Amino acid sequence: MKALIFDSGLQVADVPMPVPEPGEALIRVLAAGICRTDIEIRRGYMGYRGILGHEFVGIVERARNSYLLGKRVVGEINCVCGKCVYCRMEMPRHCVERTVLGIQNRPGAFAEYLTLPEENVHLVPGGIRDDVAVFTEPLAAAFRIVEQVSPSAHDRIIVLGDGKLGQLAAQTMWLYSKNVTCVGKHAWKLELLSSLGIRTALVSDELDGQADVVIEATGSTLGLNRALSLVRPEGTIVLKTTCADGFQLDAVGTVVQEVRILGSRCGPFRPALEALAMGTVETRPMVSETFSLDDGVQAMVRAEDPDVMKIILHI
Amino acid sequence: MKALIFDSGLQVADVPMPVPEPGEALIRVLAAGICRTDIEIRRGYMGYRGILGHEFVGIVERARNSYLLGKRVVGEINCVCGKCVYCRMEMPRHCVERTVLGIQNRPGAFAEYLTLPEENVHLVPGGIRDDVAVFTEPLAAAFRIVEQVSPSAHDRIIVLGDGKLGQLAAQTMWLYSKNVTCVGKHAWKLELLSSLGIRTALVSDELDGQADVVIEATGSTLGLNRALSLVRPEGTIVLKTTCADGFQLDAVGTVVQEVRILGSRCGPFRPALEALAMGTVETRPMVSETFSLDDGVQAMVRAEDPDVMKIILHI
Repeated sequence: MKALIFDSGLQVADVPMPVPEPGEALIRVLAAGICRTDIEIRRGYMGYRGILGHEFVGIVERARNSYLLGKRVVGEINCVCGKCVYCRMEMPRHCVERTVLGIQNRPGAFAEYLTLPEENVHLVPGGIRDDVAVFTEPLAAAFRIVEQVSPSAHDRIIVLGDGKLGQLAAQTMWLYSKNVTCVGKHAWKLELLSSLGIRTALVSDELDGQADVVIEATGSTLGLNRALSLVRPEGTIVLKTTCADGFQLDAVGTVVQEVRILGSRCGPFRPALEALAMGTVETRPMVSETFSLDDGVQAMVRAEDPDVMKIILHI
Repeated sequence: MKALIFDSGLQVADVPMPVPEPGEALIRVLAAGICRTDIEIRRGYMGYRGILGHEFVGIVERARNSYLLGKRVVGEINCVCGKCVYCRMEMPRHCVERTVLGIQNRPGAFAEYLTLPEENVHLVPGGIRDDVAVFTEPLAAAFRIVEQVSPSAHDRIIVLGDGKLGQLAAQTMWLYSKNVTCVGKHAWKLELLSSLGIRTALVSDELDGQADVVIEATGSTLGLNRALSLVRPEGTIVLKTTCADGFQLDAVGTVVQEVRILGSRCGPFRPALEALAMGTVETRPMVSETFSLDDGVQAMVRAEDPDVMKIILHI
């Protein structure tokens, strides 16, 4: 089968078909989204080598559970042991033995086929088109914030970053509070949110601050102290940026203001699929371009351009 | 009256007696403790100028509430407006109009007299000696951690730092879980804790890590990343260190492990007084030396020595 592989370089190559382990489904990939993480991996993040990609929708071609056969699915990316201390603590996404689709010890989704444990697979309702379904995984990461901070209608929420994750986070928070402001650098990206009725601001704008929750999705090492300047005492900063350089953190501000900083990674697929099915989160304006898998290298280069949002591969 | 004042330099000087505002008590100070914060203020922290000191015990000499007259008291250091947004949110310690005894716009406790709002004052039971009562304020800061993390008997807790606050935090956590380890640089300081039955380790020792809670009280810019290396996924780091240089924070570790970082400052006096009255927290071995207020400058110099723990001024 064909696959987009990162090894010493990046190339589309012919590789052997994956063979599902017991309990795993074989999935024919229909479409896959390029994520910032894929770009970071190419720069050395996680030290991963192999088939890239972890945002996908596909058709189950082989499974022990016959109900899944032929169904269109998305899949959770953390594949877990079920036995380690964190699995037993009901924190499977932190399984110490985990493999992660296209990120850690498991071939990814930029390929004609992939395998995943059947328990990771979620059926996709017919009303969700392929180019929308590929947003399930990043939208789940936005719903992780809901699990962590339980936003309420009274919360004043600021989202820093107008990229893909910032936009999904802003839309997700907006389901809980109408007092959401997304702050970014790009007027045309912010326009996608303001057309939905969500308040936006440019980073150069004067901002009120004193927010109950600030979501840091800038992708920049400066994002954390910027968040600190905008959060109220005992407020919460949700940290989504993984930048290899690390953050400089104002210790006095954090301690004196008693700020709560939460690292936040993968999230629950079910509310993400519900939001996509109901149309309460809008992803279509975020799709900038589509490429075939054959043009995968070119697609990855294009995805690095700050002037594009989501790039989708049609497999 | 005599007072130890930090202005351009540090000196014991004669200053006018303070005049209590309506609702304030006039307190004759009996004893006061020197805190790391006093040393930091001398180095420029908070930009404070005036009478230093915020850990004290004294006698109420004047008050509207006659019940307080002649009583031995300690006092909460944050003096608040009761009207601002944070006072109305029941977060008075974050009052935007607050003054803070010996730290922010309010003369401190290294003086023969001080004033505080009557509502800030707590009676000291007869069984608590003066040199113990001065620990109420820093011990309250340790009990703030209890408010924030609700430690349980199942929690594995690591305290980084064997200084005064680290020791009080370790003893306080030990009231809730016997699985506490205090990590420090000084064998003789750690010995004070191990004589109470609390497990200790030197920073050079190999440590298990994967703690549920790590309390960072090192006073060092390196403390936060050290804490990050010892906490489990979705575990909690309580940040007590205020160092002007700020922290370097490993962004990938924080986000991928979904760690929760909590800034932590002042705490509740009532559980601190209870613990001192019951003897469940032991402070006496932590008192290194006592000085008279006349020798206040010398006492401050001595307090900077890493070979001493608590220095107490007898007024």
